[in-house]
Amino acid sequence: MGKSSIRGNEYQTKVNFGDCDPAGIVFYPNFYRWMDQSTHHYFTALGHPTSHLVMKEKIGMPIVEAKCQFHSPLLFDDIVTIHSTIIEMKNKVFTINHDFYKDGKKVAGGYEVRVWCDMSSENMKAVTIPNDIRNAINHTESLV
Amino acid sequence: MGKSSIRGNEYQTKVNFGDCDPAGIVFYPNFYRWMDQSTHHYFTALGHPTSHLVMKEKIGMPIVEAKCQFHSPLLFDDIVTIHSTIIEMKNKVFTINHDFYKDGKKVAGGYEVRVWCDMSSENMKAVTIPNDIRNAINHTESLV
Amino acid sequence: MGKSSIRGNEYQTKVNFGDCDPAGIVFYPNFYRWMDQSTHHYFTALGHPTSHLVMKEKIGMPIVEAKCQFHSPLLFDDIVTIHSTIIEMKNKVFTINHDFYKDGKKVAGGYEVRVWCDMSSENMKAVTIPNDIRNAINHTESLV
Amino acid sequence: MGKSSIRGNEYQTKVNFGDCDPAGIVFYPNFYRWMDQSTHHYFTALGHPTSHLVMKEKIGMPIVEAKCQFHSPLLFDDIVTIHSTIIEMKNKVFTINHDFYKDGKKVAGGYEVRVWCDMSSENMKAVTIPNDIRNAINHTESLV
Repeated sequence: MGKSSIRGNEYQTKVNFGDCDPAGIVFYPNFYRWMDQSTHHYFTALGHPTSHLVMKEKIGMPIVEAKCQFHSPLLFDDIVTIHSTIIEMKNKVFTINHDFYKDGKKVAGGYEVRVWCDMSSENMKAVTIPNDIRNAINHTESLV
Repeated sequence: MGKSSIRGNEYQTKVNFGDCDPAGIVFYPNFYRWMDQSTHHYFTALGHPTSHLVMKEKIGMPIVEAKCQFHSPLLFDDIVTIHSTIIEMKNKVFTINHDFYKDGKKVAGGYEVRVWCDMSSENMKAVTIPNDIRNAINHTESLV
Repeated sequence: MGKSSIRGNEYQTKVNFGDCDPAGIVFYPNFYRWMDQSTHHYFTALGHPTSHLVMKEKIGMPIVEAKCQFHSPLLFDDIVTIHSTIIEMKNKVFTINHDFYKDGKKVAGGYEVRVWCDMSSENMKAVTIPNDIRNAINHTESLV
Repeated sequence: MGKSSIRGNEYQTKVNFGDCDPAGIVFYPNFYRWMDQSTHHYFTALGHPTSHLVMKEKIGMPIVEAKCQFHSPLLFDDIVTIHSTIIEMKNKVFTINHDFYKDGKKVAGGYEVRVWCDMSSENMKAVTIPNDIRNAINHTESLV
């Protein structure tokens, strides 16, 4: 309700020549690269740029699971819009859903499960998602 | 039974500097790149190199679904062994499972669902997996 | 004269998390990926999208030489603007220069030498750069 | 003289499906990725694995210049051998040459200029190449 048509959890990218394989379609690991980019964009739009989190606060969000289903191939020069939504948030773990659209048609859909981690020592350690982040996500997703 | 310790469905790779991200661990889309490489290696070991299938016979194997779970991070210079097994084969679709090992310990596991496709025209078209391929897979996997 | 401040031969990209290496700076082969993207963008801005040239007309522009000098590292979330200029055009070969800017400061500079090629048969063959392309480039670069 | 036929400064890789573009040949930035890999391999063969240098000693070797010339395209499944040689070593800077061979024929050749850097603080700082590294290189290259 009341969300504008341009939302922080929309990320747009273009299919580059080098993203495509000899079959002329996107080489599929690039979809996961774009999911990763869209997750970073999500937190930036939330007011918590991951470049700051990662480089200054030594916080990381390593992946424990990622899945994607591919419905239609993407081609060189296609414009892709990714809608990203955090659909579940536990104490230290969250799941972010990513739907890929081309010309308004869903072409792929997947998710990532990520862990909030302190990377300041050599062994990264899962930590509780801080309240300011948690509140910002809840507000964006209307989870509360 | 009777399988040698070095199997066609084992693929080995090394984690390169450029495969790792600012957190010092493998950037996760690379796991899918390695699953892709291991699938190509699987068919090559079967006697059906995908370079021949793709470039000469215009056969492709686009992905309809891929998932991976990550148990332990991989680091620069780690040696990774991937065990790849076709666990399901339908008329035009197969599922290939990939388990990642480092020093004998499973660090990640995933699968790809792929469709056998004729790529000779502009619109790729799913076709029946040919009998010689099917037989070679059945023989390797002892599915029959 | 009379060129607007936003020019077709300016390409902008953002440094993603996955573009950076364990040293926290851009993994250098990505600069060449961006040079490639900027060249494709250049032809698209010229009215000759390479997606059309490559996929429909079977024209390619393989590289025969590429060089880049790196003055300052780029970091995660940096915005990079690439100014691309065709500085030499022979019968079948052209040189495109790429300068990388961050916050108005040049951080890297390089070039690609590319050959206009007919890719319709298995062996690609260098061909003369067509007049409409040549004229569009001359007009953009004020080479004439 | 007296060097064996298998040398530490030879690095071998295979062209993967995902390394190739819609033109069916290697997407050219990958050559720089392979130059980077071959440089890392060079130091590992020298007895100074860069994974140790980078992760433990906080030493990096950022690039200040890289150039490559491409003579023949590489195709999916090609085996590539890279001969890497340090051809110049100054106080803090060295140049490493990389020649790419396929079936004994040179297909590409380039070089990287790299700076020995202390990455332990936020601003990396060029430092003198240590004597043990310098001696190992001189011995390998018969520069002395």
